[in-house]
Amino acid sequence: MRLLFINPNATDSMTTAIGDAARLAVPEATIVARTNRSGPASIQGEADGAAAVPGLLAEIAAASGEAFDAMVIACFDDTGRDAAREAAPCPVIGIGEAAFHAATLVGRRFSVVTTLPVSVPIIERNIAAYGFGPACVRVRASGVPVLAVEAAEAEIAAEAARADAEDGIDSLVLGCAGMAGLAERLADRLGLPVIDGVAAAARLAALAGAIPGRR
Amino acid sequence: MRLLFINPNATDSMTTAIGDAARLAVPEATIVARTNRSGPASIQGEADGAAAVPGLLAEIAAASGEAFDAMVIACFDDTGRDAAREAAPCPVIGIGEAAFHAATLVGRRFSVVTTLPVSVPIIERNIAAYGFGPACVRVRASGVPVLAVEAAEAEIAAEAARADAEDGIDSLVLGCAGMAGLAERLADRLGLPVIDGVAAAARLAALAGAIPGRR
Amino acid sequence: MRLLFINPNATDSMTTAIGDAARLAVPEATIVARTNRSGPASIQGEADGAAAVPGLLAEIAAASGEAFDAMVIACFDDTGRDAAREAAPCPVIGIGEAAFHAATLVGRRFSVVTTLPVSVPIIERNIAAYGFGPACVRVRASGVPVLAVEAAEAEIAAEAARADAEDGIDSLVLGCAGMAGLAERLADRLGLPVIDGVAAAARLAALAGAIPGRR
Amino acid sequence: MRLLFINPNATDSMTTAIGDAARLAVPEATIVARTNRSGPASIQGEADGAAAVPGLLAEIAAASGEAFDAMVIACFDDTGRDAAREAAPCPVIGIGEAAFHAATLVGRRFSVVTTLPVSVPIIERNIAAYGFGPACVRVRASGVPVLAVEAAEAEIAAEAARADAEDGIDSLVLGCAGMAGLAERLADRLGLPVIDGVAAAARLAALAGAIPGRR
Amino acid sequence: MRLLFINPNATDSMTTAIGDAARLAVPEATIVARTNRSGPASIQGEADGAAAVPGLLAEIAAASGEAFDAMVIACFDDTGRDAAREAAPCPVIGIGEAAFHAATLVGRRFSVVTTLPVSVPIIERNIAAYGFGPACVRVRASGVPVLAVEAAEAEIAAEAARADAEDGIDSLVLGCAGMAGLAERLADRLGLPVIDGVAAAARLAALAGAIPGRR
Amino acid sequence: MRLLFINPNATDSMTTAIGDAARLAVPEATIVARTNRSGPASIQGEADGAAAVPGLLAEIAAASGEAFDAMVIACFDDTGRDAAREAAPCPVIGIGEAAFHAATLVGRRFSVVTTLPVSVPIIERNIAAYGFGPACVRVRASGVPVLAVEAAEAEIAAEAARADAEDGIDSLVLGCAGMAGLAERLADRLGLPVIDGVAAAARLAALAGAIPGRR
Repeated sequence: MRLLFINPNATDSMTTAIGDAARLAVPEATIVARTNRSGPASIQGEADGAAAVPGLLAEIAAASGEAFDAMVIACFDDTGRDAAREAAPCPVIGIGEAAFHAATLVGRRFSVVTTLPVSVPIIERNIAAYGFGPACVRVRASGVPVLAVEAAEAEIAAEAARADAEDGIDSLVLGCAGMAGLAERLADRLGLPVIDGVAAAARLAALAGAIPGRR
Repeated sequence: MRLLFINPNATDSMTTAIGDAARLAVPEATIVARTNRSGPASIQGEADGAAAVPGLLAEIAAASGEAFDAMVIACFDDTGRDAAREAAPCPVIGIGEAAFHAATLVGRRFSVVTTLPVSVPIIERNIAAYGFGPACVRVRASGVPVLAVEAAEAEIAAEAARADAEDGIDSLVLGCAGMAGLAERLADRLGLPVIDGVAAAARLAALAGAIPGRR
Repeated sequence: MRLLFINPNATDSMTTAIGDAARLAVPEATIVARTNRSGPASIQGEADGAAAVPGLLAEIAAASGEAFDAMVIACFDDTGRDAAREAAPCPVIGIGEAAFHAATLVGRRFSVVTTLPVSVPIIERNIAAYGFGPACVRVRASGVPVLAVEAAEAEIAAEAARADAEDGIDSLVLGCAGMAGLAERLADRLGLPVIDGVAAAARLAALAGAIPGRR
Repeated sequence: MRLLFINPNATDSMTTAIGDAARLAVPEATIVARTNRSGPASIQGEADGAAAVPGLLAEIAAASGEAFDAMVIACFDDTGRDAAREAAPCPVIGIGEAAFHAATLVGRRFSVVTTLPVSVPIIERNIAAYGFGPACVRVRASGVPVLAVEAAEAEIAAEAARADAEDGIDSLVLGCAGMAGLAERLADRLGLPVIDGVAAAARLAALAGAIPGRR
Repeated sequence: MRLLFINPNATDSMTTAIGDAARLAVPEATIVARTNRSGPASIQGEADGAAAVPGLLAEIAAASGEAFDAMVIACFDDTGRDAAREAAPCPVIGIGEAAFHAATLVGRRFSVVTTLPVSVPIIERNIAAYGFGPACVRVRASGVPVLAVEAAEAEIAAEAARADAEDGIDSLVLGCAGMAGLAERLADRLGLPVIDGVAAAARLAALAGAIPGRR
Repeated sequence: MRLLFINPNATDSMTTAIGDAARLAVPEATIVARTNRSGPASIQGEADGAAAVPGLLAEIAAASGEAFDAMVIACFDDTGRDAAREAAPCPVIGIGEAAFHAATLVGRRFSVVTTLPVSVPIIERNIAAYGFGPACVRVRASGVPVLAVEAAEAEIAAEAARADAEDGIDSLVLGCAGMAGLAERLADRLGLPVIDGVAAAARLAALAGAIPGRR
């Protein structure tokens, strides 16, 4: 099983962390992680997302001959997902959609903690479009920019604790690829399942890549 | 990773086939497959489903001290899923819901081919309740009873071909645990992804079992 | 008109009260009330509900030759309703669904006051599945267990008063078969229609039993 | 129990038939049936409905001091229902909504057979607004005008037979007050529950009129 | 382009203001504004709305030979809209629906500030029926009666400021024909797009009147 | 009033035709029409759409200082609409959404006739996301590629006639910017309102540009 993770932003350190998280989740697969060098430094809002898509599609085109079983878009906004699905020779999964699928497998209701408020309506729109609306209680912004996530665990944990206290949820979804490393510690602190989209996408990509007849 | 598959009906040969299909899907996990000895011979309709639940819950209670990471209800109706989720000390996944998640990961629209017409409204109700309504084009009965599935591949393939021809689908879901062995051949014949719920549930159970903080 | 009320739990005193409330509501009918002796003492949560279904279906099977015009499942969770409908030779109505129908006949919006928090998601799921979602403002737990309802009128009245004050409702639904006796006094206190599912189900069963061509 | 049936159209013979059907359904109640003398001869389309409302509200105002327990609008379009509910001192029920409630009590899915095509979108809008959308398979016009219903049983029966053959329904709803007399014979012919809104409304009005605290 | 604005209430001063606001919005069109002399002085609640419809339809019938390109119902409740559409020889637009269309063209989410609480459920029902439910955050009553709107700008502005502060909206909709003159000043004060339904309807009527093939 | 129309594809002749159609619809406005020179020759499918967005956003950025009152994305897919709305200093309207708004102003139900089948799911997704799902009967492909539209009026008219005959619609929407010139002739032929998104967007942009407080 060969899985390609594409980081739609241009920040290499995030790509490395994404690859590491994916390998931990599916050690039996070959994980390749690539950076969209022509993308913005981070994706915050609709315009950043749009700016990332051409490079993302170019990465997909370049990888089309490399016999990947599935590809993952490693941004929680699922940037360019529909165009990527049309272009790729194999299943394409966004880490946002992967996290929503995982959340509905471990409980009824979930909330999301993401980075800046500008990402909230994008995530809400995706949740509605994919059919997860009834299961999602609230999409919450922590106020932490994407590239500051690693240094701001306290703020993210505080918002996660508010979600746990106020939302009546069965699980918490981390709404940014850069939060992959926080899931374990947050789950310990909250006593609640905490879902990282990168790990969820790795396992779902392995599933999708193994379905017979996939293109 | 230890995963328990419970066959809610009392037919041991189906339990064996379910365990084999799950092991093929997630070879790195320890798969245990058990039969609900107090269940009906097969589950066809609401009353059969209701008759299967007490034994299913007893199996879950008996297994609660055995450190399973996740449990799977291996009937496409997801018999007793909500009660099982309340009772189990770990995530519980139905093979129906697993198949619907998988179908929306490899394409936009899917149809289901199941056994008898009596199962159609049950599957339709689950699809609506889980939020997959917009993605499902049609739930189709092949007219083949559960225990005759193995001997009636031609009838199932014929209905699958009709789904492919008429429904404008991106993937086909096999709507019975007993159809696990048909996916590969049907996919070859149709040139379309064909989803078996047992394999899908095995991979999703591995995902759910690995989420930190799960109970 | 002969109507059968089945109490899915094993508590005989509740069965007696249910029969009395039904007779008051439809004095012109013959009301028979029976206890599911193999059920749990009360139904609180999904597992209790699942445990009640086999006995409930056995009661229905036993009564199938007795020429009932309709049957009522006298638990607000509508325990086993779909399986019962498949099995019975006549219409089967749950007291939860009966109460929701009644509430939308006397006004636009209603709230429910039930027993323990564990019942809230079950009732919410039923409301959504039956199509009453837009009309229901909130399902509220009073914190009173099923078997303590009679002795805890003050707590229930307090939650009912909060629903009246906060929810902008046209009627209040009592979310437990054991609350049948409270409707009149609560309505006097609140000046708001208060709906007891047992009485509502008795009248709806009389309606359903009189529809020509019913099975 | 005193129930007022208001025929929103000006045709006295329909009023008489409506009163008779209601008395058959709830013999223990006092049924009063009145004609909206300022209404159109029949209600076919939006404009007829609008023309009927002032007279309907005048009848309600005139009856407000007469201690009715509930009132019924005896047109399948539920003409003026929301305004009537605001104006009346007791619950107000339309025969359309009554029929939809009854249909979901005896089965999962129903179709409606009404008079002219101009009524179809009105009935469809009501079904959607009340939350019965998922349960209704199809609203069908028989092509028979309201005032010709009695003389055109064959055409209505033919459309009903098509609904039975094509729609996969559990019950059939008769979509015009003038069809009350046909239910029994159609049910015999089809072997399917057939619901007349006048009878259903009579029983539901008795239910609503008996809810404590109703205004 | 000839556009007819019908004020469904009998207050001439409102008709004059409506005509003036419409002319400002579409100066290139011929705007005719007429009063429904048989309507109530203002429309507050369902019964007022019902009372206004016959006169409204009479105005439409009277105007049918005058070669209007489109007609506007100048009450925010869209009183009698469906009947008017059936009766008119050209497109008919309500100022409520016009405002909702405009709000979704300038942003994602809007709130409405209207007059009395009795209008809130009517407006909410229309928003749901037209498909704008997901875009509307809240319908708010200012507590100001229709005929007092001009003299109560402070109360309306205060509720508008609360909507801006609490609802996370992209635009504010003024929920009464009598508020047309307030939009500009409220927009300056709030720094938020403020939508007056009369102006929006004027422009949409010009659009609808210009669609080839309209009846 | 200054309105900017951006053709997201690189074909100048389409830009000219779009500008002409917009000027005809709103002669009192100053219409500027520009080509996205870095876009694909036409937009057919998700990947073409994604490829068009960066140039589209660059056009918007370049125009931000030019005091436009509103901007229009002149592709029926509403390519890049959400990102454009975030980036622009004024309202941004897609010709698809404009057409759907117009269709619901002249009737209840509409169908769309577009170019190739690859555009159908994109248009369906937009219709659902904007809330027009209940009003749209069917999105139909004519099989004519975007750049062949002018030379293939017969094929488009044939599909339009099928929509008129089969879909029970009140209006027909032309689902491609290149079809602007066909509306008048098709409306004459069908006797049905025919909606061109370019004209509809021009009028809606004039409306949105005139709302006080718009950014």
